Amino acid sequence: MSRPGIRAAGNVLNLKPELWDSHFLRACRGEATKRTPVWLMRQAGRYMQHYRGIRSGRSFLDLCKDPALASEVTLYAREWLDVDAAIIFSDILVVLEALGLPLTFATGDGPVLGKPIRDGAAVVALRDPLTAAKDLGYVHEAIRRTVTGLPADIPLIGFCGAPYTLAAYAIEGGSSRQFAHTKTFMYRDGGAWNALLARITAALIPYLNAQIAAGTSCVQVFDSWVGHLTRADFIEFVQPHLRTLVAGITPGVPVILFGTETSHLSDLIAACGADVIGVDTTTDLSATWERCGGPTRIAVQGNLDPCLLLGPRERLLKAADVVLAAAGGRPGHIFNLGHGVLKETDPEQAKALVQHVHARTTR
Amino acid sequence: MSRPGIRAAGNVLNLKPELWDSHFLRACRGEATKRTPVWLMRQAGRYMQHYRGIRSGRSFLDLCKDPALASEVTLYAREWLDVDAAIIFSDILVVLEALGLPLTFATGDGPVLGKPIRDGAAVVALRDPLTAAKDLGYVHEAIRRTVTGLPADIPLIGFCGAPYTLAAYAIEGGSSRQFAHTKTFMYRDGGAWNALLARITAALIPYLNAQIAAGTSCVQVFDSWVGHLTRADFIEFVQPHLRTLVAGITPGVPVILFGTETSHLSDLIAACGADVIGVDTTTDLSATWERCGGPTRIAVQGNLDPCLLLGPRERLLKAADVVLAAAGGRPGHIFNLGHGVLKETDPEQAKALVQHVHARTTR
Repeated sequence: MSRPGIRAAGNVLNLKPELWDSHFLRACRGEATKRTPVWLMRQAGRYMQHYRGIRSGRSFLDLCKDPALASEVTLYAREWLDVDAAIIFSDILVVLEALGLPLTFATGDGPVLGKPIRDGAAVVALRDPLTAAKDLGYVHEAIRRTVTGLPADIPLIGFCGAPYTLAAYAIEGGSSRQFAHTKTFMYRDGGAWNALLARITAALIPYLNAQIAAGTSCVQVFDSWVGHLTRADFIEFVQPHLRTLVAGITPGVPVILFGTETSHLSDLIAACGADVIGVDTTTDLSATWERCGGPTRIAVQGNLDPCLLLGPRERLLKAADVVLAAAGGRPGHIFNLGHGVLKETDPEQAKALVQHVHARTTR
Repeated sequence: MSRPGIRAAGNVLNLKPELWDSHFLRACRGEATKRTPVWLMRQAGRYMQHYRGIRSGRSFLDLCKDPALASEVTLYAREWLDVDAAIIFSDILVVLEALGLPLTFATGDGPVLGKPIRDGAAVVALRDPLTAAKDLGYVHEAIRRTVTGLPADIPLIGFCGAPYTLAAYAIEGGSSRQFAHTKTFMYRDGGAWNALLARITAALIPYLNAQIAAGTSCVQVFDSWVGHLTRADFIEFVQPHLRTLVAGITPGVPVILFGTETSHLSDLIAACGADVIGVDTTTDLSATWERCGGPTRIAVQGNLDPCLLLGPRERLLKAADVVLAAAGGRPGHIFNLGHGVLKETDPEQAKALVQHVHARTTR
């Protein structure tokens, strides 16, 4: 079920021993760790004063495209929280922009993609995927700068949006509740649908591999919207493309597959070659781990509700203990939230959570 | 697990035999039917030209508050589709308006509730629940008009929003993706939280019972947002109130409990006293039925993806067959969508679906 050979591949990237044996990468490979590694999705973001200072006066996209600042934001959050991994500051939608869709972030309204894709002609009109991947060099430069600033035992995670989620954004022209345009497209024109997902996948593979060449030692694929699909539709319309993507990622690099509201799909997602399955807030971590093959086949990441960071400290830490108990101290658990940190979060709460997980799990 | 005595209660409302033995009410009670009853959530709505004609020139809320027009919309959709039940045309949020929160529907942006509730003082300031329920007389009048226009063997379903979902709307001031304000409120001030849900529940009970007195013979409770909660939070913060609500509904009237993205909660929801558990699109109908006690304990309603109505006819009908196969022809299945009809739907597709389910299941 796992990506062929991932754990047997060994240290093909020639990572230094401190990095290869870091808590985080060991857990990705399902190996025992001295403590449970922890990082937080969207750990660098609006909830931090440092981030707001750097963001003020520039757009979100401008920040993504400035390698020095993207790197600084990444490193600051990692160090301040003392988490076991950094994740490069960027956005999944830059790939769609590179493929030719005008991207803006309207205040409060989320992303807007001009020229939404509604037919096969619009798919053909997308830019060449290799050219698109090359145009994302600012992400790769941010990665190069970040790895030089990280402690030797802290991995940097790269990421991208999954083919389905990016296709849904491209077709809807932004986010959506029902994904009516996306599903209509999918049901009515399977040929154009597959062409679109193939085009996106063809951009994502070189984009991720360039991230790895630039210094990331793990990648996470965010399939944010895939939870809206039934199992049958996932198998027919999505799974082949997700498999292709994972198969194209440089061997030896652990792949985390994550989507929200995917409890009904987790085994199918895992079967796409995930080394780590990301578990969202409302999904049962222990049951999902078993359904995906258990600790001997796959690692698991998750899944504290980020809203708990907004409540009292005592409730937060108790809930963290519940997540740790669900993982049961078995090798291959990476502690994380089940969704990104909310902008309303007090950073001290996030820091206390990290310290608590470390203290509780030091073996 | 079922509401005590619901199926044993017998015909305490003294419904006429045609109605008592209608396909729909028999299925609600888990009794065998000559065909599988079917209705569609949001079956009267923007996708129908008749509805758009009546809506033009007036606001959505004005339509809800006009008993003659609300009744006409309800009856037309029922008859045109030839479905086995009507559901009164209204909105779950009118209860919050009656409790004192200014309600508007901004074009394209969904509902906006002025004066969002953020503290205990705002809960205390809500209007008296009994007065609120009385102010909703226009819904009850619409029900009275509707039942006089329905065939003798077609039940009218009443409905309300669940305490959690209405509280979430009241606290957020509209819809939300993360429900950060709601959960913050819930975690930080359990006293005010419980006071708010109790106040809402105290309005919902007389409101539903007046719907029943006016002629509805079944009620559905929409807990649209509850799927965002973990099991632990559902048990602590929601379940007691939902139990209270169901316990307060006139005996002998079947209660359908429905929420989207609730596969992880369905057994807990069923345990609140549901006679019928509504299953959303991505949830496994067969597994949910088993988890909730199976056909001997509870009936099940669902769960075709409404997006399938936007695709080719052949795919739609095949998918309907998959839903019917999941129910396995067992007594107590009500065919429905897993979510409301989308506004982009071709009404002929909806009609074809209803005909197909009837033809396939006539025994």
